[in-house]
Amino acid sequence: MQRHFHEELDQLKQTLLAMGAMVEEQIRRVMRALVDRDDAGAQDVLARERQVNQYDVEIDEKCVELLALHQPAAGDLRFITTAMKIVTDLERIGDQAVNVAQRVIELNREPQLKPYIDLPRMADKAQLMVKQSLDAFVARDTALARSVRSADAEVDALNHQIFRELLTFMMEDARTIPRAIRLILVARFLERVADHATNIAEMVVYLVESKMVRHTHA
Amino acid sequence: MQRHFHEELDQLKQTLLAMGAMVEEQIRRVMRALVDRDDAGAQDVLARERQVNQYDVEIDEKCVELLALHQPAAGDLRFITTAMKIVTDLERIGDQAVNVAQRVIELNREPQLKPYIDLPRMADKAQLMVKQSLDAFVARDTALARSVRSADAEVDALNHQIFRELLTFMMEDARTIPRAIRLILVARFLERVADHATNIAEMVVYLVESKMVRHTHA
Repeated sequence: MQRHFHEELDQLKQTLLAMGAMVEEQIRRVMRALVDRDDAGAQDVLARERQVNQYDVEIDEKCVELLALHQPAAGDLRFITTAMKIVTDLERIGDQAVNVAQRVIELNREPQLKPYIDLPRMADKAQLMVKQSLDAFVARDTALARSVRSADAEVDALNHQIFRELLTFMMEDARTIPRAIRLILVARFLERVADHATNIAEMVVYLVESKMVRHTHA
Repeated sequence: MQRHFHEELDQLKQTLLAMGAMVEEQIRRVMRALVDRDDAGAQDVLARERQVNQYDVEIDEKCVELLALHQPAAGDLRFITTAMKIVTDLERIGDQAVNVAQRVIELNREPQLKPYIDLPRMADKAQLMVKQSLDAFVARDTALARSVRSADAEVDALNHQIFRELLTFMMEDARTIPRAIRLILVARFLERVADHATNIAEMVVYLVESKMVRHTHA
């Protein structure tokens, strides 16, 4: 039984990592679609959203099942409940890729406003944060989790920089406003990806370092 | 034991409702601060964020404790795991109130761009959705939960309408751009409040109507 349970826990981790890899891939694909002005690439991201949602339901079910069948104690219990929270953040990272994909399709109807340099940099950073937050969860590595939290400030800084630059475009030429606003939104969606990675990282620190359930209420 | 457990579950519901009332109040206060151009009111919302976060931690701990002590079966188990997800949505609704409060303080540094009519309407709708989604959770009322989901479309429509109106302001007078963008963001934050309420409502439908844990894997 105990052996079986730990195999199941291990499988849960693998599925979470697979979901994480998938949402990272969604970010990567949607940014390529943005840069290449590729409608088909953006449509592809929209189509793959279904799979992300399937992971969400599957992992959730798995967690409830593990809780029901094995009634795990303190450490394992909290690991599973944390996984249930993390899966929500991953699903919402997937939603951000969808949000960007929709803006890409809109942007492709007009000429490109400017070359994209900072947006891909911002996406790379956010994507790495997602990867590292999950690695930190699986390895219970709080040092890595803390580094994710500090990377969030860099993504915020890029977001503000992109915002200011696009504001200048808009002020100088009103015809750029609809495109500039879409790009501002893309930057905000990427910022939210980084926020979700930060949520995951914070849960890892809490999981590993906080006092576990102390049955204080009993 | 059983009696005790159901008292604890009931207390969990009450705490969730109290947290829900608090985040609703945050939305109400921040919208009043927007309309009244009241920096102190916005600061007050920022200060009260601590309490929202305390609820988040408290409810999470309570849920883990109930899982650990009572090892509940199917229905109660899923009720508790759903509560753990809902609390995350409530906490993020609280974050949106904070996001609006920050924009209010920035907006107060410049003259008012226009009278606010649709934004408060949008906030009222979003706030009602939060209340109803929680009522639906506590009463396991899927009809109410479904009505929350359909209200989301109205909030989205208001968001688009506000966006288009502010776009017109920006196109006509570049000096309005910074204020208009802040108001566009306020509308998006309110839209996210409605999205979180919709998440809660969807979880209620899933909680009540989906097949519960069937131990299919055992």
